[in-house]
Amino acid sequence: MSEQFYVGVDLGGTAIKVGLVNAAGELLQTFEGPTEVAQGTEAVINNIEKYVRHIVETSPYEWDQIAGVGAGVAGFTNIKEGIIVLAPNIGFKEVPIRSILEERLGKMIKIDNDANVAALGEVWSGAGKGLEHCVCYTLGTGVGGGIIVGGKIVQGFSGLAGELGHMAVIPDLEAIQCGCGKMGCLETVSSATGIIRMANDAVERGDRTSLSLLEHAITAKDVFDAAKAGDEVSERIVSRAAFYIGKSMASIAVTLNPERFIIGGGVSKAGDYLFDQIRDTFMKLTPEPVTRGVSIVAAELGNDAGMIGAAGLFLHS
Amino acid sequence: MSEQFYVGVDLGGTAIKVGLVNAAGELLQTFEGPTEVAQGTEAVINNIEKYVRHIVETSPYEWDQIAGVGAGVAGFTNIKEGIIVLAPNIGFKEVPIRSILEERLGKMIKIDNDANVAALGEVWSGAGKGLEHCVCYTLGTGVGGGIIVGGKIVQGFSGLAGELGHMAVIPDLEAIQCGCGKMGCLETVSSATGIIRMANDAVERGDRTSLSLLEHAITAKDVFDAAKAGDEVSERIVSRAAFYIGKSMASIAVTLNPERFIIGGGVSKAGDYLFDQIRDTFMKLTPEPVTRGVSIVAAELGNDAGMIGAAGLFLHS
Repeated sequence: MSEQFYVGVDLGGTAIKVGLVNAAGELLQTFEGPTEVAQGTEAVINNIEKYVRHIVETSPYEWDQIAGVGAGVAGFTNIKEGIIVLAPNIGFKEVPIRSILEERLGKMIKIDNDANVAALGEVWSGAGKGLEHCVCYTLGTGVGGGIIVGGKIVQGFSGLAGELGHMAVIPDLEAIQCGCGKMGCLETVSSATGIIRMANDAVERGDRTSLSLLEHAITAKDVFDAAKAGDEVSERIVSRAAFYIGKSMASIAVTLNPERFIIGGGVSKAGDYLFDQIRDTFMKLTPEPVTRGVSIVAAELGNDAGMIGAAGLFLHS
Repeated sequence: MSEQFYVGVDLGGTAIKVGLVNAAGELLQTFEGPTEVAQGTEAVINNIEKYVRHIVETSPYEWDQIAGVGAGVAGFTNIKEGIIVLAPNIGFKEVPIRSILEERLGKMIKIDNDANVAALGEVWSGAGKGLEHCVCYTLGTGVGGGIIVGGKIVQGFSGLAGELGHMAVIPDLEAIQCGCGKMGCLETVSSATGIIRMANDAVERGDRTSLSLLEHAITAKDVFDAAKAGDEVSERIVSRAAFYIGKSMASIAVTLNPERFIIGGGVSKAGDYLFDQIRDTFMKLTPEPVTRGVSIVAAELGNDAGMIGAAGLFLHS
């Protein structure tokens, strides 16, 4: 039989990225086109079909060599039924994407949410390559996660596993309400949104900080840059964001005993300045035997993780 | 081929319990004999062998029908190598129990720690029968746990998964040091030991409580009995124990999204008085979608869970 390939689709609100991936998890070729959310669900689905066909047609491989098409979606997915339950960025609600694409493409289709497929991508061919037990954090607008046990994504009973941003790790006295309705969730502090909120609060309170001199809306990057330059208010904000990530990892470590924590997403670009603080907290809060051999590292695949992981759904789920 | 059976061994500090289990997870026959820890490691191993042979000889089945012998041990186990690393109650240290028993019994041997095999027993034929995603708590001297994902025990990278008693859920201001060396572990509050400690502290402080009238050392059962009878100090102690179990479950729910939490161990005998408070906290602290369809129930197998789960190591690991 000739070599088989997989197409991984990263379905985002602005762009649809499609990648041709081999059975070793190598991304051979990519194509990116607009999602065109404003044109409606039908148009978005047409675009997915078009881009998938396009990348195969422009590759050296035959359509018959494509063993399956996987898609990662920013939103709630019902992976058993292959339905995108709710994906606000893409304007999808209760879209049975698997059956639609199966009919249009004549291929096996698998879907999962973006954090899960990114985690799978990292474990398949990125920062967790070959590891059986890994936990991935995505620090972006929110805090997402993906749990890998025995080399596979943990979906949980109703597909909601890996919602690490909603671990209630902030003590009551400091807790604010999260978008999910609960108090003290990790992402109220450790996401880009949380970091920006703390920065704006500090400026509004009149704290002495270089952030108050900025002439644009404060970004998470501004806060990290100021912290690295010695701005004490920014240092405290970053410390707080790092502390609660480390604290959540301590809880996960005694529960799942992963070998590696992998951190991706925009906020992770702050690098070792952030990572070292996370590592310190993790070591301080975790029983020693559970820290042995455990590493906390940056994601490696960046924006490719979604495409690679989506293709990986065929081999690791 | 004739029907196959498994022997499950529950290796405790006082007694060794052996059970004959069929492939459906039914416990057909049991035998219990003294461990004789004081006689040393060799004597304990001899006893295991003797009791395993005895239960098969006194059964209607042939030795050849035994497909394997599983053992659950209260202690640290290296399940890959089949070594009991450290089991203080049994006086075992670095005992390669698997190879020893394989040679003596001529059967496949599997081992795991007691909390894991109890969890497996409950999922195989107890309170979690047939469920893919379950988390079991054992509330005893400490707080143990077993995580079931996809019907299998999660071991973790170095076999330390499921140490739920060491989730750091107690806020800094109230945290005391745990036996593991860290602050604020769940078991400092929600184990029998933790409950007794809080009770003794209250009596020593001179709090008005019926516990101060007891003429014996306070037990966890005393505290529950007093709480049910309206003793306010005892009510607060139980509420606190329940609250932090519920809080730890909220973190696990967003991480692993289990369908059921199963609670066993001596403390769980307090029944719905305890369970209702745990359920209330869980519902209060967990994002609503992750609570849907989730139940918190008592373990069903009691002291048999260890034997059944140890036998289940052959079918579920």
